[in-house]
Amino acid sequence: MTDIKAALRSQRIETPSWAYGNSGTRFKVFAQQGVPRDPYEKLADAAQVHAYTGIAPTVALHIPWDKVDDYADLARHAGELGVRIGAINSNVFQDDDYKLGSVTHPDARVRRKATDHLLECVDIMDATGSDTLKLWFSDGINYPGQDDIRSRQDRLADSLAEVYDRLGEGQRFLLEYKLFEPAFYATDVPDWGTAYAHCVRLGPKAQVVVDTGHHAPGTNIEFIVAFLLRDGKLGGFDFNSRFYADDDLMVGAADPFQLFRIMYEVIRGGGFTDEVAFMLDQCHNIEPKIPGQIRSVMNVQEATAKALLVDRDALSAAQNEGDVLGANAVLMDAYNTDVRPLLAELREEQGLAPDPMAAYAKSGYFEKIAAERVGGRQAGWGA
Amino acid sequence: MTDIKAALRSQRIETPSWAYGNSGTRFKVFAQQGVPRDPYEKLADAAQVHAYTGIAPTVALHIPWDKVDDYADLARHAGELGVRIGAINSNVFQDDDYKLGSVTHPDARVRRKATDHLLECVDIMDATGSDTLKLWFSDGINYPGQDDIRSRQDRLADSLAEVYDRLGEGQRFLLEYKLFEPAFYATDVPDWGTAYAHCVRLGPKAQVVVDTGHHAPGTNIEFIVAFLLRDGKLGGFDFNSRFYADDDLMVGAADPFQLFRIMYEVIRGGGFTDEVAFMLDQCHNIEPKIPGQIRSVMNVQEATAKALLVDRDALSAAQNEGDVLGANAVLMDAYNTDVRPLLAELREEQGLAPDPMAAYAKSGYFEKIAAERVGGRQAGWGA
Amino acid sequence: MTDIKAALRSQRIETPSWAYGNSGTRFKVFAQQGVPRDPYEKLADAAQVHAYTGIAPTVALHIPWDKVDDYADLARHAGELGVRIGAINSNVFQDDDYKLGSVTHPDARVRRKATDHLLECVDIMDATGSDTLKLWFSDGINYPGQDDIRSRQDRLADSLAEVYDRLGEGQRFLLEYKLFEPAFYATDVPDWGTAYAHCVRLGPKAQVVVDTGHHAPGTNIEFIVAFLLRDGKLGGFDFNSRFYADDDLMVGAADPFQLFRIMYEVIRGGGFTDEVAFMLDQCHNIEPKIPGQIRSVMNVQEATAKALLVDRDALSAAQNEGDVLGANAVLMDAYNTDVRPLLAELREEQGLAPDPMAAYAKSGYFEKIAAERVGGRQAGWGA
Amino acid sequence: MTDIKAALRSQRIETPSWAYGNSGTRFKVFAQQGVPRDPYEKLADAAQVHAYTGIAPTVALHIPWDKVDDYADLARHAGELGVRIGAINSNVFQDDDYKLGSVTHPDARVRRKATDHLLECVDIMDATGSDTLKLWFSDGINYPGQDDIRSRQDRLADSLAEVYDRLGEGQRFLLEYKLFEPAFYATDVPDWGTAYAHCVRLGPKAQVVVDTGHHAPGTNIEFIVAFLLRDGKLGGFDFNSRFYADDDLMVGAADPFQLFRIMYEVIRGGGFTDEVAFMLDQCHNIEPKIPGQIRSVMNVQEATAKALLVDRDALSAAQNEGDVLGANAVLMDAYNTDVRPLLAELREEQGLAPDPMAAYAKSGYFEKIAAERVGGRQAGWGA
Repeated sequence: MTDIKAALRSQRIETPSWAYGNSGTRFKVFAQQGVPRDPYEKLADAAQVHAYTGIAPTVALHIPWDKVDDYADLARHAGELGVRIGAINSNVFQDDDYKLGSVTHPDARVRRKATDHLLECVDIMDATGSDTLKLWFSDGINYPGQDDIRSRQDRLADSLAEVYDRLGEGQRFLLEYKLFEPAFYATDVPDWGTAYAHCVRLGPKAQVVVDTGHHAPGTNIEFIVAFLLRDGKLGGFDFNSRFYADDDLMVGAADPFQLFRIMYEVIRGGGFTDEVAFMLDQCHNIEPKIPGQIRSVMNVQEATAKALLVDRDALSAAQNEGDVLGANAVLMDAYNTDVRPLLAELREEQGLAPDPMAAYAKSGYFEKIAAERVGGRQAGWGA
Repeated sequence: MTDIKAALRSQRIETPSWAYGNSGTRFKVFAQQGVPRDPYEKLADAAQVHAYTGIAPTVALHIPWDKVDDYADLARHAGELGVRIGAINSNVFQDDDYKLGSVTHPDARVRRKATDHLLECVDIMDATGSDTLKLWFSDGINYPGQDDIRSRQDRLADSLAEVYDRLGEGQRFLLEYKLFEPAFYATDVPDWGTAYAHCVRLGPKAQVVVDTGHHAPGTNIEFIVAFLLRDGKLGGFDFNSRFYADDDLMVGAADPFQLFRIMYEVIRGGGFTDEVAFMLDQCHNIEPKIPGQIRSVMNVQEATAKALLVDRDALSAAQNEGDVLGANAVLMDAYNTDVRPLLAELREEQGLAPDPMAAYAKSGYFEKIAAERVGGRQAGWGA
Repeated sequence: MTDIKAALRSQRIETPSWAYGNSGTRFKVFAQQGVPRDPYEKLADAAQVHAYTGIAPTVALHIPWDKVDDYADLARHAGELGVRIGAINSNVFQDDDYKLGSVTHPDARVRRKATDHLLECVDIMDATGSDTLKLWFSDGINYPGQDDIRSRQDRLADSLAEVYDRLGEGQRFLLEYKLFEPAFYATDVPDWGTAYAHCVRLGPKAQVVVDTGHHAPGTNIEFIVAFLLRDGKLGGFDFNSRFYADDDLMVGAADPFQLFRIMYEVIRGGGFTDEVAFMLDQCHNIEPKIPGQIRSVMNVQEATAKALLVDRDALSAAQNEGDVLGANAVLMDAYNTDVRPLLAELREEQGLAPDPMAAYAKSGYFEKIAAERVGGRQAGWGA
Repeated sequence: MTDIKAALRSQRIETPSWAYGNSGTRFKVFAQQGVPRDPYEKLADAAQVHAYTGIAPTVALHIPWDKVDDYADLARHAGELGVRIGAINSNVFQDDDYKLGSVTHPDARVRRKATDHLLECVDIMDATGSDTLKLWFSDGINYPGQDDIRSRQDRLADSLAEVYDRLGEGQRFLLEYKLFEPAFYATDVPDWGTAYAHCVRLGPKAQVVVDTGHHAPGTNIEFIVAFLLRDGKLGGFDFNSRFYADDDLMVGAADPFQLFRIMYEVIRGGGFTDEVAFMLDQCHNIEPKIPGQIRSVMNVQEATAKALLVDRDALSAAQNEGDVLGANAVLMDAYNTDVRPLLAELREEQGLAPDPMAAYAKSGYFEKIAAERVGGRQAGWGA
């Protein structure tokens, strides 16, 4: 149990700046009270999540949504709030030029513009001290024949190579894949195999990031985690959960057993280290943002605690004997354990409130931002 | 062949006013040139689709997007353009009050407001002469426990009953179902069974509308069509196509064979009449709107022509003999026929250009609206 | 807690005779040691499951697999073992005549034969005292055009009506639906809507049975449960679990949270009574049969206990306030509770061993049947 | 058109020996008349398919189903029938030892046995002159925790390396992936990424084979084809079609447009050569075997003809201009063309009957084998 607590104390989960702004579906974005108007306010909200959970010390930025004049100042602001800048996420899907693609666009001018944006994101990494660039491309086509699938791979490879070469010492990029949306026929990086193949070709600074909501129905995500870890190519996670498509619900809300299995493979595969980034990437369309993030962090933490509880010796023994039910039972025994008392205890040992949700609710922070953040333009996806 | 041509001449496909406005995904709406600024301009664009295809004489309205002060004037305007007002579509998903539902919302005040909107849509039917109300509810919940699934059915039933009672002579409503989006855990009308059960309870003026993009993966849509027709409960279609979820691509673009099978069941089941409404419901996110609608109308027409070509006597004979390959071959023979020459001939017989896409492109209409429609606010989903 | 224990003591889960025989996939059936050679031995194994769990007192039969000369004798044998005969399951999918269907076959002779088999199953209900007939039809077609979808519905309706009329006082049938397999294009009862529509037409003795593995990906099963209960049409469950298709794994093994949500809707909808049959229907292809059944019964029991723990007053309050996270938290609080100590206590209060799996393993029963059941022909699906 | 005909004349599609034997589902295998009793009779049937289509000159064997004492004699027999031995398929899923896996089994003894079988298949390649070994592993687990996902990858890698090293000059193996079945939780080679990664590590003699029925719902197969061809790692196809899972229906029966898109990417990617093996792999559960294969070969041929008809210059021009509808229209124009007259003409130029299905039906071959092949044991999967 001491080891488990030590492991849990070392856990780090990154929250994304955009989670604190408004989000929604193509049908409607419902605005919420107290939503941040700028990156500084987003960091303040993220700091709340860290203050109550103790394991969310970094915040991912999204460029251009989080563009500021002085990134050093933004980083200093974060430090004053008790958090740090995490991954830099590039956005090459909202400029009018990107209607038919960014780095895979048929027009070389648009590709140049998109790649320049990625290079600018590395500049921001330099300025903020971030070591991770996260690349998600919405690129793809809606209709068969619309563009040439293979040529788009060539263009993708060219752009990735240029960005890869720009990476400095201690910097890396994570390539994200997604089955579909917003492209509805063929997406240029649709699955882990595609991301993996590009990263293998490029070298050790290119790794795959697994967004748990980006798979076809039935995909075994923990298999992918195990495979990528075996190959040294798992760079991190974008956590969220889904019942259908890329629903971006709170991680652990749809299938907590899956989350547990994923965390088990992370631990078993040696991925429970700083080498693998554990990030949230979800939309709180109808629930309040900060509590949504706190709950999500707690869900990951609970799944991790359960995964750490697995009796791996007993599991190996049953597996090697071909004891199907016995091996399954060892895993389920950990999953069925209620780890909330353990985590409450852990928090109290660290000087935190045992129940982060209740503590935040009582803090008055929401009432404060709801009152203060009036006027201005609320942050959001700006779609 | 004479019969087939006669059948094809009688075909009517309705286009939706919103197809002519801007649309997109939650990531970005890409504006297009020449997009209408009001319902009058939408009708003008829809009239183009009818002018070149000859089979799209009605236009669905969407309330409140198409709210005007004088519906009689709008209907007159349509008539001058050579088209008519078709179904009235209600929108109870974009008001801030509807964040947690409309007619199934836990708060009675919101339910009242939503039902009142539906009743207002019947008023608009009266004013425009429309005989069809199309009801789609985005209502649902994102998280297990968020609301009570069964109570929401009770509330839905209450609202539907009130609207049903308001329907006048010769009026009906069509209840639409959808697996998910924007609700991501439980949608209140998720499948045809739910829509059917409510409609059966209400009576003959309530029927089910099949949106071809609203099903779980693997669902056999033509089975549903056959079943609903057998029961007198198929009210119409919202046509579009999809590879993944509710992608809203042009009908026939993703799986033309499926569209053919659907049209075959329509014809076999006696549904190729005015009793069943054939409507388009799709988003031209990246392709131009008017040509997108023309192409879609043509795709439905081609599938219909192929379905009419099926040698039903030969098919029945093979089916009754248990000749698996023979029966399949009869169906495929029709599908594999190139019906484009037949349709070109049919158009010329009706005084239309044989190639609607080319004729529209040459007409200069797009250049005209692109030049004229400058300023103002382009129509769109307004999400 | 007293109420919860009382509820748990009243729970009844039926195991199926075929679960004790060999099963497998189209690729291979792996035989196991000690497998029963006849219905009498199957009942003996089923009695073990009841002996250790205390809540599995009935056993479903499958005709013709379980055909015997003297059903009264079989029922008496069951009684001596401490169990009873449960539902009678009809098999109209393994005779050579059924290659293209049974009750929906194009040939009237085959339909007559199939319906006669169903009527014979009612005779067996009379002879055994069973009150439930479970109807699953593998009927469907593999290729578009192979047979007429609508005519098959007509034939199905005719056969069901005949069987319905034959049901005696206190007897009912449950109609099962399944998306696909063994039919691979169109299944004649593919979804709950189809089963429901037929049952509604027939009357109160016809109800729908939900097999948890028979849905399209993404289907919300608890919604169906809630809907059918609201309508008085939920007759029972065939429990199993799946990651992909109709995998027939142990219930609760793939998604225990889903099982909990289902049981919650059962309880909330008033379905936790003898009116709803809770049956297992799964294949132990690689794990030992009796322990597989014990584990499955325990999984349902654990999910039930958690569902009973939900604080329904707190839940309703949060739901009615529109408190998304609060309502979800009430549900999750119950789910996250470790109910195993409670169930161990309950068992001990009833004179059972606290750990059924361990108690069975220590009993020596498996060693006994493995030694005794040598020679003869092991029971299996006989495909 | 001359080029297109030349290309079509060069096409080669391989049929599998097992397609001529009985097959079915786990529920029932329906035996058919005239089914072969041994590999010699299977080859005779395969020769019929070639005789009527002119493009099916090779036959895949399956070991141990097609084990014979004298492979040279079998190859000579094939030659006399006008066909040749194609790929050798290994079967490591039907021995009782393989219940928990073959090359990934936890027990080293079973792994040794399985790998030895693979090596024996290479011996048979030497004896028959086959240059291709096709590896499909049913290996996987049914329950979380049952075995260690990562260790199984280690064992798989070891076995593949040993087989790779054994390959002679001009020999290669194709590694097949499959999402699920018969393993229902985690399959050891579940997707193209896994197969690809192993093949890349091993070298040029290891390539990926795409079975068109082995993907998760929504997977874009032509994307995978394009990607693998770009990387030189597409070794071949197992063609079949599906509406749901691995339904193994006749290729082109479920989604002929998808088959066309696949063939288009093959041609565009330079894969229409002898380097890529085009094989059928399907089950004729209810339709007659030989006509089922003839129809399937014709379906691939028709899709190929349409793909060859694509005006690639016009397509590229539209793609490069970003003309979404125009580019799509170029592709659809080819797809919508009825190529059956062209293929009939091509057959007649080659001295074949224009309609292979009709010609085979008239030949009396089926009546002959139905009469002659009485007694003995019909070939089948033997599950």
